[in-house]
Amino acid sequence: MLVSKIISIGDEILIGQIVNTNASFISEKLYSIGIPVGKIIAIGDTEQALLNELDDSYKNYDVTIITGGLGPTHDDITKPILAKYFDDELVSDEKVLNHVKRIFKNRNIEMPEVNYEQALIPKKSDVIWNKNGTAPGIWIEKSEKVFVALPGVPYEMKAMMENSVLPLLKGKFESKVDYVLKSRTILTTGIGESNLAEMIGDVKSIIGDENKLAFLPTLYGVRLRIDVRGKNVKDVEEKLNIIESSLRYKIGNYIFGLDDDLLESKIGEILLKNKMTLSVAESCTGGLLASKITDISGSSNYFLGGVCTYSNESKIGILEVKKETLENFGAVSEEAALEMAENVRKKFDSDIGLSITGIAGPSGGTNEKPVGLVWIGYSDKFRTFVKKFLFGNNRERTKIRSAYMALEILKKEISNL
Amino acid sequence: MLVSKIISIGDEILIGQIVNTNASFISEKLYSIGIPVGKIIAIGDTEQALLNELDDSYKNYDVTIITGGLGPTHDDITKPILAKYFDDELVSDEKVLNHVKRIFKNRNIEMPEVNYEQALIPKKSDVIWNKNGTAPGIWIEKSEKVFVALPGVPYEMKAMMENSVLPLLKGKFESKVDYVLKSRTILTTGIGESNLAEMIGDVKSIIGDENKLAFLPTLYGVRLRIDVRGKNVKDVEEKLNIIESSLRYKIGNYIFGLDDDLLESKIGEILLKNKMTLSVAESCTGGLLASKITDISGSSNYFLGGVCTYSNESKIGILEVKKETLENFGAVSEEAALEMAENVRKKFDSDIGLSITGIAGPSGGTNEKPVGLVWIGYSDKFRTFVKKFLFGNNRERTKIRSAYMALEILKKEISNL
Repeated sequence: MLVSKIISIGDEILIGQIVNTNASFISEKLYSIGIPVGKIIAIGDTEQALLNELDDSYKNYDVTIITGGLGPTHDDITKPILAKYFDDELVSDEKVLNHVKRIFKNRNIEMPEVNYEQALIPKKSDVIWNKNGTAPGIWIEKSEKVFVALPGVPYEMKAMMENSVLPLLKGKFESKVDYVLKSRTILTTGIGESNLAEMIGDVKSIIGDENKLAFLPTLYGVRLRIDVRGKNVKDVEEKLNIIESSLRYKIGNYIFGLDDDLLESKIGEILLKNKMTLSVAESCTGGLLASKITDISGSSNYFLGGVCTYSNESKIGILEVKKETLENFGAVSEEAALEMAENVRKKFDSDIGLSITGIAGPSGGTNEKPVGLVWIGYSDKFRTFVKKFLFGNNRERTKIRSAYMALEILKKEISNL
Repeated sequence: MLVSKIISIGDEILIGQIVNTNASFISEKLYSIGIPVGKIIAIGDTEQALLNELDDSYKNYDVTIITGGLGPTHDDITKPILAKYFDDELVSDEKVLNHVKRIFKNRNIEMPEVNYEQALIPKKSDVIWNKNGTAPGIWIEKSEKVFVALPGVPYEMKAMMENSVLPLLKGKFESKVDYVLKSRTILTTGIGESNLAEMIGDVKSIIGDENKLAFLPTLYGVRLRIDVRGKNVKDVEEKLNIIESSLRYKIGNYIFGLDDDLLESKIGEILLKNKMTLSVAESCTGGLLASKITDISGSSNYFLGGVCTYSNESKIGILEVKKETLENFGAVSEEAALEMAENVRKKFDSDIGLSITGIAGPSGGTNEKPVGLVWIGYSDKFRTFVKKFLFGNNRERTKIRSAYMALEILKKEISNL
């Protein structure tokens, strides 16, 4: 069985300044192509530590992915040490140099001298193209062992893994991977982990002994990840389908998608299909709901816009919420949420209006209206209603949970169309 | 100098199912007490891998913190392997057993048989009390080396680190920690890594030979982390102040804060101090700018609200952008951005109005107006201006960079008040 290793380089990991999210991304990808990670290492910017790890990799692992230490500054040690370990030298790669120069030219900035070093590559290596940045990746093979060095900047590294490294590894090791590993994630919303577990019941009877089901709670719902291993893609796909069907039978009402599906994207599909438009009025979420909706490309086809009325004056002036409503019931009230949902729909002339008003905290709470109290309103031409929630005293979490709860309410309403 | 190591145990890390946040928490804590982490390892639930790492720890590290693998199920291997490595045996600890029994009793659940194993402890070890869960921690000392095993559940681990492990380590190694380590992060925005490096010039002459300066790029700017080591807190603080001053002298225009400061929070401070109010009009950022601003608690004291005009109709209807402007120049234009900034300021009756209009993509671009083209407008009662940017073809990045660029423009304007 093939096995891989990840070496993350950077003092910022060792002093706890950043969380090593790169390693989990890479692990998942390598696992999916049948070269699971056996060890993850994080070390500092020191020569001896990296040399030791390269040696361990060469002896014990088929594939080693190194992230970090590829930039143009003095603390970037990966390239010189790779050259040293493999008894190689660094030479300038013209294509990379032109790419780096072009990036600076496009930004209308003169290229600093230090960036010439970005184009230095170990002579016996191949370049992995980095379309999003100036630091190229490096691919080195020796005695059937593969070493890959990638920049530590997550979006650069991710694109390079997906576009280059994974296809290359798949091609190279195709004949050696004699089994298939696949996972599928079932996305749920509107139900907690333990209630889901209870509804699902005996897990082993659904997934079998060799496979895995993991419960991964997030702020917008619980993700259920199924891992299946088998002899070939067909067997594994079939097993995944069977497990998914069993789960849909038990908890189908709470499932909104698979894998990388987003609730906001699912909603977009339904609105598009029904040729419906949406607008939103936000208070405590401060624009987050609109921002989530517009994360989806093509959202301009159904999302007309939103208002973030963060003051009473703007609720009255922009949204035409009645002054008496705010005076009599307050800005965080059933009545205000109702008017906000209805008025934003009319203002934007959209089919549906959503509203959120609440107390995100940490201040502003009272006994009657505690921090975390949130009203969410829905309005279409047939009816307008609101729901009340208590999301606790963490400002950030209350913003996120309120925005997703509004999406969930919306999804429920439009799913029945 | 003392050095420590972290061993994280669990397949869920190696398959990328969870991010190893435990390691960054522990790293930061150990660094702060002068026992910095030299290596972080993640391995699976296998005996040989853990035995090898224990051996490496015993030879090379003063302190080793192990997380995970302490539960009561078959794949929890930490305790038996610790006993094996240290030639010890597992014995039942009565106090721990009573604690475990009490937890089940309090939950009104009958204790499963397997939980008797929670109370098993290596005979030559000390128990680290876990008030939040059933798995006790373990403290083993041998030849001045310390091994600590903690559960992998984050809130259990964190409480045990803070309440027990850190005080114990501090006490034990007090005489050996004859220096102080401190770091400070200088936050910059509006300039790239290599340009910063060029402006700073020779790093060693600023920070000295023993200290470190690391460049950490993010989407909103580059973070510069200074690590200083010295004999006592006073010396170290002074050195940090001197380095910070030197950096401010060289790149002061790009610095907006220190450590955990946020640009959006800094802006809030300045607005509050000057008793000024703000409103925003967004198109391509779709609410993200307002959401960033309202992430700051107390933002309702200066942020009056925003509009997200995602359609031409709403730009005209809600923001009163002239129809002719949109017809003649388009929604993504200098003229539209100008009107949006000025009109939102007037609509909300705020001192300052910000606007963003652009093409987030992936579709909607033309030769003249490519994907990534963004206009950002600023308006106060004295003047209104716009700036043009090209942020490339990644929708998510364009949203984030546009929002932060608007904040940066705002900060520059109000910093001079």
